[in-house]
Amino acid sequence: MGLQTRINSAVEAAIRIGQGGTPPAKLKDALHYACTPGGARIRPTILMSVAMACSDDSPKMADAAAAALELIHCASLVHDDLPCFDDADIRRGKPSVHRAYSEPLAVLTGDSLIILAFEVLAMAAEHSPDRAVRLIRTLTRQSGMPHGICAGQGWESEAKIDLSAYHKSKTGALFIAATQMGAIAAGQDEEPWFELGARIGEAFQVADDLRDALYDAETLGKPAGQDEVHGRPNAVLALGIDGATKRLKDILGGAIASIPSCPGEAKLAEMVRLQSEAIMPVVKARSTKVI
Amino acid sequence: MGLQTRINSAVEAAIRIGQGGTPPAKLKDALHYACTPGGARIRPTILMSVAMACSDDSPKMADAAAAALELIHCASLVHDDLPCFDDADIRRGKPSVHRAYSEPLAVLTGDSLIILAFEVLAMAAEHSPDRAVRLIRTLTRQSGMPHGICAGQGWESEAKIDLSAYHKSKTGALFIAATQMGAIAAGQDEEPWFELGARIGEAFQVADDLRDALYDAETLGKPAGQDEVHGRPNAVLALGIDGATKRLKDILGGAIASIPSCPGEAKLAEMVRLQSEAIMPVVKARSTKVI
Repeated sequence: MGLQTRINSAVEAAIRIGQGGTPPAKLKDALHYACTPGGARIRPTILMSVAMACSDDSPKMADAAAAALELIHCASLVHDDLPCFDDADIRRGKPSVHRAYSEPLAVLTGDSLIILAFEVLAMAAEHSPDRAVRLIRTLTRQSGMPHGICAGQGWESEAKIDLSAYHKSKTGALFIAATQMGAIAAGQDEEPWFELGARIGEAFQVADDLRDALYDAETLGKPAGQDEVHGRPNAVLALGIDGATKRLKDILGGAIASIPSCPGEAKLAEMVRLQSEAIMPVVKARSTKVI
Repeated sequence: MGLQTRINSAVEAAIRIGQGGTPPAKLKDALHYACTPGGARIRPTILMSVAMACSDDSPKMADAAAAALELIHCASLVHDDLPCFDDADIRRGKPSVHRAYSEPLAVLTGDSLIILAFEVLAMAAEHSPDRAVRLIRTLTRQSGMPHGICAGQGWESEAKIDLSAYHKSKTGALFIAATQMGAIAAGQDEEPWFELGARIGEAFQVADDLRDALYDAETLGKPAGQDEVHGRPNAVLALGIDGATKRLKDILGGAIASIPSCPGEAKLAEMVRLQSEAIMPVVKARSTKVI
């Protein structure tokens, strides 16, 4: 089974847990709608790649971790698209959840996906309670307050933004979760994997800034130029296109150099290199995937 | 230390975890604002009462469980008050979170409190990983989809409502969580405690229906007559005031009869009896507390 197939199967299995019995039909459908099609599934791909580099001795634990991380990411997209935030009509090339269903159902879809993420991890405790608890702690830390993606989004309501904290929380947090949860799922210490996640997160923030500045809505699958419209900090506005592109390459080089020693180190470095090419919008101008 | 003091201390300690370091200031404040003042803290009171009836052999586990349950309840109030749901201007006698802060911050406050609830339980795993995992599983099940409070709220978006499923999920779920989490925190099997939670939940639904129909906004601390305005099912509309009052008494009698055998059985029965008096709005017309 290929990596993308494995990840999508894990996500589908997780969604089915939230759809059991005969719950309200629209919310049931919206859970699936919000998570498919999956875009590049980049966060669970990184998680799985790290787990496999660390020998992946408990595949079901890695599956649960990957699914939980992706559910949190999808929940954040659903809530970020709400009228009170980005008011986005499209996401991944189709109507956003509040447009396709309703605003109440979009709020509930996000809430349900967040809760489902932790349910999936708690259920995986049957394989290893210790790893499950560590996965839940890591995912909560990188998702909520004071340092997770909720905090990142919260900075946008402040008159004066701590730019470093903003980027680390808003984009970096779930990449840190990805590398650390991959290590935990495979029974390894998560601490050495912090830096790789942080650097990949930084790279994706710069890449996202480049996309937002350069691509149109059709290519992006979501509204373009949103950072300028909403007055949000953006690397292209700060460094220019060439400066931001150079910065992106530097960060990715550092990310590869930071990979901790592990059985699958070389293959993991290759994965990061491939991802680097895929997210280089200006130089290669070839990726139209939603990250 | 009295029970209310113990519960409030546990909730405050949990909120401080979400406020550590220097997160965005408004969201940091909103976390506390959303959870205080605490109303009757009825769900964690039931949880603690069950834990104490079962000997409360791990008080820190019961504290974490009570705090987590209350955070989920407060998160649900914040999201339920949003303009796309009840559009409530007041809650617990002060402006609702989206009125006091903003709609984006209200969405993020709810999300952060949900995540914080699971973080608090995962942190309590140091006392007992097994109990922590069971608490997380129980709380996710009663909070999310397909049977938790998210499902309950989701029924309101359906053209045809499964009334029994609606009430069980919307109001009953967190009372089932309360009795079962109290038992788990004290190292007991949760299954025998399902019925007590379900019956208390049913009683509170009927009591809430009576309040919504009989009290004004000032007494309630939130808008009155919302069920009729929003066309929602309500026991008073179905049975009349006398019928609903009789139904409430019957349910509470059944709740007391369902208490499983445990060291503190008599004291727990007395607590349920006291709560029964407190929530009897028509007969006693004495409670103005927000439940």
